[in-house]
Amino acid sequence: MSHLPGRKQENHKISRELFVLTYGALVAQLCKDYEKDEDVNTCLDRMGYGIGVRLIDDFLARSAVKKCRSYSETADVIAQVAFKMYLGVTPSVSCSSAAGNEFSLILDKNPLVDFVEELPAERTSLCYCNLLCGVIRGALEMVHLAAEVTFLQDRLKGDAVTEIGITFLRKAEDRKHKR
Amino acid sequence: MSHLPGRKQENHKISRELFVLTYGALVAQLCKDYEKDEDVNTCLDRMGYGIGVRLIDDFLARSAVKKCRSYSETADVIAQVAFKMYLGVTPSVSCSSAAGNEFSLILDKNPLVDFVEELPAERTSLCYCNLLCGVIRGALEMVHLAAEVTFLQDRLKGDAVTEIGITFLRKAEDRKHKR
Repeated sequence: MSHLPGRKQENHKISRELFVLTYGALVAQLCKDYEKDEDVNTCLDRMGYGIGVRLIDDFLARSAVKKCRSYSETADVIAQVAFKMYLGVTPSVSCSSAAGNEFSLILDKNPLVDFVEELPAERTSLCYCNLLCGVIRGALEMVHLAAEVTFLQDRLKGDAVTEIGITFLRKAEDRKHKR
Repeated sequence: MSHLPGRKQENHKISRELFVLTYGALVAQLCKDYEKDEDVNTCLDRMGYGIGVRLIDDFLARSAVKKCRSYSETADVIAQVAFKMYLGVTPSVSCSSAAGNEFSLILDKNPLVDFVEELPAERTSLCYCNLLCGVIRGALEMVHLAAEVTFLQDRLKGDAVTEIGITFLRKAEDRKHKR
């Protein structure tokens, strides 16, 4: 959608609670649709991927971040700029491999589960926030970075923190070199 | 969830684009689940209702608005405080009945459809944003105001503006008087 010239700059900031509750409704619907937790997780990841692919343009335009020169810088931008912008929190980042391509985003508090008390007993394998993994994966792919993104720990499942693991794959880089 | 004393005040403000895209994924999923547009609309309204019922506490706490003394004041608060807070826009309000219980919220621009080009040809009866009607209805019910909330115009359907109609019903008040 194009912005009309002279039009007042819009306010893109909103309180996140409506989003958090709407996300809850989405997960609840998928739990109705799919019996297996794995299918819900896959669906959330796939949806998130589609969102990430579209969100990246908004992110680059709004954040004005420059091209990252390392995986480490990329992970920092995801945590400090993207999470802050879209979820209002800043996870801490740690590098978890000697090869320098595996990172953890550690969320002391996960706003997406603000209204969730606990997972239903029969949904123990549900990755409630799996959409986020897909979003990160989709957005990274649009800047030519292939990555695997998964939840490693989840406070909803009794872990002490929520931890998202990002493993950058070398593939995209290789493909680029072959061109 | 209780807030720990001494804990840093969280930032609840987020950019709305992730929300808008997630909402789109929700509607798309419901369109997969239900063949009839009417069923999707009903489902969105029902989900919204559940969200409104829970969101009202957050709204009252965060907005610090006082009890409204008239339907007109209530409609203004919805438009100027709630829409601003949760969607980042402020609809204009007009009263559309002599009885003073029917109002229109007119959205010049609807952020929820930011990434939507147009409705698919076979989805002409879809009220894409029907969740909002449910949210308003649910939230109002929690402050003892029964209301009917529906889309009267929709830019996605070719109308010049998007218009949400709110008709306050006297029932809740009557019930209260009978107690």
